[in-house]
Parts: sequence; structure tokens; C-alpha cells
Amino acid sequence: MTLREMIDRLLGRQQASATTAKHRLQLVLAHDRSDLNPDLMEQMRREILEVVNRYVELDLEGGDVSLETEERATALVANLPIRRVRDDVLPQVPAVQ
Amino acid sequence: MTLREMIDRLLGRQQASATTAKHRLQLVLAHDRSDLNPDLMEQMRREILEVVNRYVELDLEGGDVSLETEERATALVANLPIRRVRDDVLPQVPAVQ
Repeated sequence: MTLREMIDRLLGRQQASATTAKHRLQLVLAHDRSDLNPDLMEQMRREILEVVNRYVELDLEGGDVSLETEERATALVANLPIRRVRDDVLPQVPAVQ
Repeated sequence: MTLREMIDRLLGRQQASATTAKHRLQLVLAHDRSDLNPDLMEQMRREILEVVNRYVELDLEGGDVSLETEERATALVANLPIRRVRDDVLPQVPAVQ
């Protein structure tokens, strides 16, 4: 199985045909056991997507983000269409605390 | 195949036995085609790990980070031991430009 196929399976989607394929960004963040509580995972997910969004313009409404847990692992899986790659990386803006 | 097994395979490591298992954080960031040049992917990877490192203390020397490319996809794969979950999330520090 290729890396691409594994990521596709992990993200639970069918291989898009060449004609319908969009540029997509796929993020998997997994860790052993439930070290971090769900609120912190959610906050970290948001901050990671803020970083990514400074590089590529993401369609945050058009994708899906899910949190999957198994007995000993937790994984955040995000599958987001890329609208376009930004010409310049946006400056970093400190998060509102 | 479970999510955990897929992530393990994706990260190309053997299933750690229960006795030797460390808490690990595994990050996969993949996108269709080579939209982003390698320098920007590297810069984005660094910023993402800075975010993660504010939540959990990572052993950045003890893990491995690799960039894998296939014909139509590029994936950043990081596999890092977690030293500990921080008691408090560290404040955000703007990156040195």
C-alpha cells in the first residue's frame, strides 16, 4: 500500500478520480493514550490550522475535522480543500488569549 | 486494520511492545501534488511543532521527521517522543523573522 493510499484510507475517503480531484490538505495528529484532554486537543488543532492557513488558503467550511479515539491512541484527522497557495506567507498574529 | 495500526505503518515503525512503549506524538501533514515548495513545507513543519511543543514537551532530538513524496502527494511525517504533558500551555511567542 502506498503512503497516499494509506492516508486516503486513514481519512476514510475514496480515491478521488483525476477529474474531480481537488487540492486537499490532510492532517493527522495522533498520540499514544489519552495524554491530552479533548479541550486541549481542540485548542491545539485550532492553532495548528491557523499556522497552516498562513501558508495556504484553506476552505475551512468545505472540509471536515474529526477526533477519533481508540483504546490506546487518539487521532485528530482533518481533510481540508486548499483554495490556493498564498503568494506570501501571512505574518504571525498572536492568538487572543 | 485499526487506526493505530495504520498510523504505525504510515510512520514505518514496528508496534512497540507494551513494556517498551513510550508516549509518542505522530504528525502527518499531507497534500495533493507539490503545491508548496520544500522550503515552505519545512518552515510550516517547524511552526507546527512549535505549537505542539507548547502543549506537550517533545523530545525533538529523540524522534525523527521526514518528508516523503510520491507522484501526486507530499507528506511530512514526524514521530516524536513526548517527555511530558505540560501543566500549563506555554504562551505563544512570535517567531523570529
